[in-house]
Amino acid sequence: MTNALNATHDPKLKSWVNSANEAGCDFPIQNLPFGRFRPAGSKEGFRIGVAIGDQVLDLKAAGLVDTDDMNVLLAQSAAERQALRAALSEGLREGSAKQAEWSRALHAQSAVELTVPCRIGDYTDFYTSVHHATTVGKQFRPDNPLLPNYKWVPIGYHGRASSIGVSGQRFKRPQGQTKAPDAAVPSFGPSKRLDYELELGWFIAQGNAQGEPISMDEAEEHLFGVTLFNDWSARDIQGWEYQPLGPFLSKNFASTVSPWLVTTDALAPFRAAFQRPTDDPQPLPYLDSEKNRSKGAISIELEVLLQTARMREAGESPVQLSRTNSARAAYWTPAQLIAHHTVNGCNLQPGDLLGSGTLSGPEATEAGSLMELTSGGKKPIVLPNGEQRTYLEDGDTLIMRGWCERAGAVRIGLGEVSGTVLAAG
Amino acid sequence: MTNALNATHDPKLKSWVNSANEAGCDFPIQNLPFGRFRPAGSKEGFRIGVAIGDQVLDLKAAGLVDTDDMNVLLAQSAAERQALRAALSEGLREGSAKQAEWSRALHAQSAVELTVPCRIGDYTDFYTSVHHATTVGKQFRPDNPLLPNYKWVPIGYHGRASSIGVSGQRFKRPQGQTKAPDAAVPSFGPSKRLDYELELGWFIAQGNAQGEPISMDEAEEHLFGVTLFNDWSARDIQGWEYQPLGPFLSKNFASTVSPWLVTTDALAPFRAAFQRPTDDPQPLPYLDSEKNRSKGAISIELEVLLQTARMREAGESPVQLSRTNSARAAYWTPAQLIAHHTVNGCNLQPGDLLGSGTLSGPEATEAGSLMELTSGGKKPIVLPNGEQRTYLEDGDTLIMRGWCERAGAVRIGLGEVSGTVLAAG
Repeated sequence: MTNALNATHDPKLKSWVNSANEAGCDFPIQNLPFGRFRPAGSKEGFRIGVAIGDQVLDLKAAGLVDTDDMNVLLAQSAAERQALRAALSEGLREGSAKQAEWSRALHAQSAVELTVPCRIGDYTDFYTSVHHATTVGKQFRPDNPLLPNYKWVPIGYHGRASSIGVSGQRFKRPQGQTKAPDAAVPSFGPSKRLDYELELGWFIAQGNAQGEPISMDEAEEHLFGVTLFNDWSARDIQGWEYQPLGPFLSKNFASTVSPWLVTTDALAPFRAAFQRPTDDPQPLPYLDSEKNRSKGAISIELEVLLQTARMREAGESPVQLSRTNSARAAYWTPAQLIAHHTVNGCNLQPGDLLGSGTLSGPEATEAGSLMELTSGGKKPIVLPNGEQRTYLEDGDTLIMRGWCERAGAVRIGLGEVSGTVLAAG
Repeated sequence: MTNALNATHDPKLKSWVNSANEAGCDFPIQNLPFGRFRPAGSKEGFRIGVAIGDQVLDLKAAGLVDTDDMNVLLAQSAAERQALRAALSEGLREGSAKQAEWSRALHAQSAVELTVPCRIGDYTDFYTSVHHATTVGKQFRPDNPLLPNYKWVPIGYHGRASSIGVSGQRFKRPQGQTKAPDAAVPSFGPSKRLDYELELGWFIAQGNAQGEPISMDEAEEHLFGVTLFNDWSARDIQGWEYQPLGPFLSKNFASTVSPWLVTTDALAPFRAAFQRPTDDPQPLPYLDSEKNRSKGAISIELEVLLQTARMREAGESPVQLSRTNSARAAYWTPAQLIAHHTVNGCNLQPGDLLGSGTLSGPEATEAGSLMELTSGGKKPIVLPNGEQRTYLEDGDTLIMRGWCERAGAVRIGLGEVSGTVLAAG
């Protein structure tokens, strides 16, 4: 890490945007996440902004970029994006000579509309939590929960990019074919087992040419940053359709991403060693590096909350369903996902999205889906207001939050991703 | 079908582009497929063209469109695209007053470079041949070759858009993890079981809003046309990685599409009844319509050819590996694929690609992959020059051709898609 990059993490830094200095703020000057915004209610094109406190800095108005295309920013080299981060950090610091000029480039977050942070060309979903894979596997194969490839291959599959929306997405309950185990033939109707999946969304910076794999040593250079990601899933549709080629209509009706792309440069203080149980197979050479073993993991705190329609009407706050940490949950690091994805010559492009897969930690309370929390719908959750849930009901709003914290560093937030289930039809 | 559209199929029509009138020509005036071209060796942007005989008509230079963006053309309504087809047909006919003007908008196909016909947002691959599904299933599950969902659900999964290239694509043999059945642990290296898959590529015209399914009655309006499509597959990588979420690195290193998008309007004379064995389950209502039963299938002749490096060096022509027909092979129609894909609310967009899946006909000689033709690599094919093949070897060029013909109609061609395997590394 360069000195200039190191300096952007200094816990003593304060911003002349006062809201950025408040305790618990998701977007202090040490964060500086990127998003796309426009004035609420306008029909203008979306512009590139950086969140600072409760404000958004318009990067073009501040003279920092000459494009409205986030994918152009993503395609920059690691050195270029670190230079931009350093310029942002310096200009937003208390006492900066930029204050007068940049003040005019600020918009209140409450007065802007945000969208998906970039054009997502291809979206790949992984399956990085061994705890999720084991718990789900147990429901299908009690004697053999984890398939033999799991600890060798970072399992992934392609998902649908067109139906990814930004936090606040409202979507109709999907309809489709399902078949009860005791039914002779399938039936058609609204999904009865609609679930969420707590994920992180890793966004690609520079891509690679087709036929030229990205090595473990280079992988981090190609990683721009991270969002929260909810991979809504219709379990009953999935159960009937997914053999032999994987999930399809059970997933592609909607997925929801948080609007602020938190950079890996901002996450640097929250790096952690990547350690596997010593009895487990060690990664094959193309998935291994010294850097990955010492600093490959990223420690992000995660929580899932639910607000039902009745709670909303009664003015009751969302209740927490689960809580975990990304480094506890993931069996593979982001660098390993990139090295694996390209080892066959597949070309990644700026703006591609790699979903982490459901991030369930080792304890039952850390599960990242209702399928896990309710043992496949057999053990309902009882909410404080007396309502019960096995799967999601119409009107439910599901919220995921993420943040990083540790002693000696300033807490930075990923913000939140929320989404609401509407009635089918 | 309107009278104007009917008139474009008249077998008596001849073009003032003489090469379009030659017997066996892929691109007579009854075809009029769309593609993107630029002068060979130039660095210009690609423009929209229509193939006529051995020429390409530059649509902008001919005053027919004011865009270079094929996706804008795809997004037009069915009425608009039929009006464009009628204008093309009239202007290219013998005796047309447009001849002098449009002659100046022609380029020899031998002097242009072609590319993928549009921007492909999302690519979905289906599995529509029951013969392919059965033959492949037998290799994995001799007692239970066809899974119980097959005759109910048009099985599909998401593929990778970024690595789709145009005919002439040359790609390195993919590397990856494989595990022999008797090996304790996986190993890493170049795929030893590299295969092709004979497919058609269906391209979406107008899309649908998220949450608003496309019904069977509307589905054909959303279908622009078709290309040949080769879904290269590394069988050994696939076998180890694909459980439980489907194929990934075994497919996404490369896929190859033919350059000319043949419209469903051109294919109208080759419509066929969609008939299933009477013992089979009939489609659920959302996958059924009177129009689909009477005219849902499209009859396209297909062949696969191989030219090895040794054949190429000896000046020997490619040899045919198999031959089939799309309507014999497919258990689901294009309209059913669209209705199924959107029934859960998933939004399709102009330029999205739906692969048919491997189109293997009922006879062994009609198989659309080497895995089928060689019984999983156990029975090598002996080529006329004495070479043998189980799977593809470095230097092999694989060619697929497609065309439609029947008494009373002019033959129209899809052209060809070729691709060459390079050594790994």
